[in-house]
Amino acid sequence: MSLQFATEELAEQLKMRHWKLATAESCTGGGIAAACTDLAGSSQWFDCGFVTYSNEAKMKLLDVEAATLEQVGAVSEQTVREMVAGAVSNSAADVAVATSGIAGPGGAVPGKPVGTVWFAWGNHRRLHSEVCHFDGDREAVRQQAVLHAIKGLSHWLEQA
Amino acid sequence: MSLQFATEELAEQLKMRHWKLATAESCTGGGIAAACTDLAGSSQWFDCGFVTYSNEAKMKLLDVEAATLEQVGAVSEQTVREMVAGAVSNSAADVAVATSGIAGPGGAVPGKPVGTVWFAWGNHRRLHSEVCHFDGDREAVRQQAVLHAIKGLSHWLEQA
Repeated sequence: MSLQFATEELAEQLKMRHWKLATAESCTGGGIAAACTDLAGSSQWFDCGFVTYSNEAKMKLLDVEAATLEQVGAVSEQTVREMVAGAVSNSAADVAVATSGIAGPGGAVPGKPVGTVWFAWGNHRRLHSEVCHFDGDREAVRQQAVLHAIKGLSHWLEQA
Repeated sequence: MSLQFATEELAEQLKMRHWKLATAESCTGGGIAAACTDLAGSSQWFDCGFVTYSNEAKMKLLDVEAATLEQVGAVSEQTVREMVAGAVSNSAADVAVATSGIAGPGGAVPGKPVGTVWFAWGNHRRLHSEVCHFDGDREAVRQQAVLHAIKGLSHWLEQA
């Protein structure tokens, strides 16, 4: 499924609910927000995006706990769940998506190889998170992560 | 000049100064942040990005004044200057770039045709702003705006 097709499907789902989206991106670095706003009329359903590349930005803009970053690191289930909660709290959005991963070529740590990406989707009522391990170089990892983030949000909305 | 080449040049300038960048994007929708973080090692110089698509997000995340948005609109010199100031204040960045424009196909108003994009670059000490009128469709306008934002920041840094 192409990125544009997946994003158009997501747009329809959000417009049907009159919902707005916020993005909270680390390893995808704005790629999800850029894909969303590539579509004309996206202001109807896209509220805002946070590109929180540094740990400081994750804490300051998305209220990720310092203890979370210290104990389990930025590339973790707990971090992406806190990023979603922070994005919803600090915006006018009804739902948010978060990514944190290791796009490479550097940054791998034991147990977290390059290509490891954590995702979370949801809001204060319902939250889903999962981890993926993508193959390929930095660009390939980021592209797969953007597509997975958007498809995962569509899937989350179908269950809601 | 290609986007990747321009971004690599910007990265070198920021690393030389040990400076960090924040982006404050409206019409480019995360495209500047995505271009920056496409480069491996960008965490050395990229702090965070704000994709403030709605007026509410511009006020909440970047402290743009309600009076500014009411009196001169989001696509204005005053708005992008306030976006830069807000991005620097609300991050750990030393310099910020802001965009606000009309990528089309909708959104044109008298005096602000599709392709009108305001830019600002700087920090609390020195701020430069300018307007461009780009040709082409939504994708072309956004691509030209991302490249201009990055080249303009390099130029600003050369003068600093």
